[in-house]
Amino acid sequence: MRLSRLGEDRLLAELLARLPCNDSVVFAAGDDCAATRVRGSSELLVLKTDCLVEHVHFASRANPLDVGWKAIMRPVSDFAAVSALPHFALVTLIAPGRTEAAWVKKLYAGLARGAAKFDISIVGGETSSTPGPIAIAVALAGFVERDRFITRRGGRAGDDLFVTGRLGGALRRKHLRFVPRIAESRWLTGHFSIHAMMDLSDGLGTDLPRLARASKVGFHINMDALPLSPDCKIDNALSDGEDYELLFAISPRDRERLETTWRKKFPRLRLTRIGRFDRKSKIENRKLPGGYVHFQ
Amino acid sequence: MRLSRLGEDRLLAELLARLPCNDSVVFAAGDDCAATRVRGSSELLVLKTDCLVEHVHFASRANPLDVGWKAIMRPVSDFAAVSALPHFALVTLIAPGRTEAAWVKKLYAGLARGAAKFDISIVGGETSSTPGPIAIAVALAGFVERDRFITRRGGRAGDDLFVTGRLGGALRRKHLRFVPRIAESRWLTGHFSIHAMMDLSDGLGTDLPRLARASKVGFHINMDALPLSPDCKIDNALSDGEDYELLFAISPRDRERLETTWRKKFPRLRLTRIGRFDRKSKIENRKLPGGYVHFQ
Repeated sequence: MRLSRLGEDRLLAELLARLPCNDSVVFAAGDDCAATRVRGSSELLVLKTDCLVEHVHFASRANPLDVGWKAIMRPVSDFAAVSALPHFALVTLIAPGRTEAAWVKKLYAGLARGAAKFDISIVGGETSSTPGPIAIAVALAGFVERDRFITRRGGRAGDDLFVTGRLGGALRRKHLRFVPRIAESRWLTGHFSIHAMMDLSDGLGTDLPRLARASKVGFHINMDALPLSPDCKIDNALSDGEDYELLFAISPRDRERLETTWRKKFPRLRLTRIGRFDRKSKIENRKLPGGYVHFQ
Repeated sequence: MRLSRLGEDRLLAELLARLPCNDSVVFAAGDDCAATRVRGSSELLVLKTDCLVEHVHFASRANPLDVGWKAIMRPVSDFAAVSALPHFALVTLIAPGRTEAAWVKKLYAGLARGAAKFDISIVGGETSSTPGPIAIAVALAGFVERDRFITRRGGRAGDDLFVTGRLGGALRRKHLRFVPRIAESRWLTGHFSIHAMMDLSDGLGTDLPRLARASKVGFHINMDALPLSPDCKIDNALSDGEDYELLFAISPRDRERLETTWRKKFPRLRLTRIGRFDRKSKIENRKLPGGYVHFQ
């Protein structure tokens, strides 16, 4: 069977089930980031890699400054999802020999700008030639306090579901210039018990069912409550993807305090309660149309 | 100017000089691996990424088990170069949708086999589609005691230069099946003061001048002493590349004890004194023909 028919989620699930994993690994593939214990440290080491491919994730005519920014911001957004702080980046650039050095320099300027924004040191850079399209892989390493590492798995029936910002339309607007929700995520875990969290990269319609599956619960969404980007409809919020907003589950007992203190702390960023987790209900979960699936 | 004319070394040097780097970074790009301090730990966190591209680093008909093995063994060899132990791996697979899932499973089996050999946990796996050739990037994280992290920079005039194993002919033989010299490197730094070390990936003719430049010394090589692989000539030892043997500099005072104890510890692996570092001498350094250069 070909990759295009198998789909990324199923392929990864099959492959990762067989990989070697030793005792120091706390959370591995399947969450937004992996976390491992470090001898002598009270914090967890957090690791994540992500890549952009020309023609797939960015157009050849895209500004290389923006491409570099997005290449590092995507894994930074995964750090936001688990409430960790990224510290170090390794960059792998695969590019044809005909690529202009000026393009590559601008790409690195975009990477450097993104790294500086979050005090990340770019500590390694590999390059390789290719006969094919340009690809940029960024691996991040960082740390998180053990009790603030948030996975997708802790959601409970009855939890409120919140999203930051607005959903939909990212490809027309911000997908090359977004700022991951690191500050918001760190504030949330510093002040509240967040049960489960993820960043929205493939669209709420794909990502929310993933969060629910990982937490082994069902969900109910109030479609009319979805915070839509300008000129967007519900379909865009569900399926466009690349929002890079946070989706998290929290006890309804915290609702009032969360909404009040959020408005004071982040007055310019919406926080919207879009629904709740409930007991598993296959019918409900099927109501969300799928988002973007790789290899199709 | 195009990448193919600029060359990888010059491009990386230019780019990396401008990258953000904070105080916790001990050694960054330019060495075989980056090393950073970790709060609360007496060890350094070591990071390295590397990638393989179809048609460049492996042929389409290559056994995917071997490709997976090589993809993880190359950065492991960089860990051997700095005498660090790799613990965690992140794998990025970029492949066209038409790729057979069976091929990908064998690739991961090769990765898993290599990881198990060195007790590495594969903690993350990203996949992305591409219209181009298959590429596999592996990022490794691991640790090393502060006083055993060996760079390319500590060589001194008068040091003996040693290489492990035999050189040349790797592309006909072992380049997809080599075993990085982690055990040998750890033994060396556990028993001797190694001044400078690297792994030979691009051929002695390219790599030795890099080691000398980083140490700011010259070198003299006894060409007749080079340990040649079967059916290989001096040119192969200098230029073939992909040997993944260790090249290191050590005081001649340690020579006898090193040669005696090495033979007992690693009776089946040659250790050869191929020459020495001396005061900088441009003429000597030019005698070595260049090895493989990316982007050409």
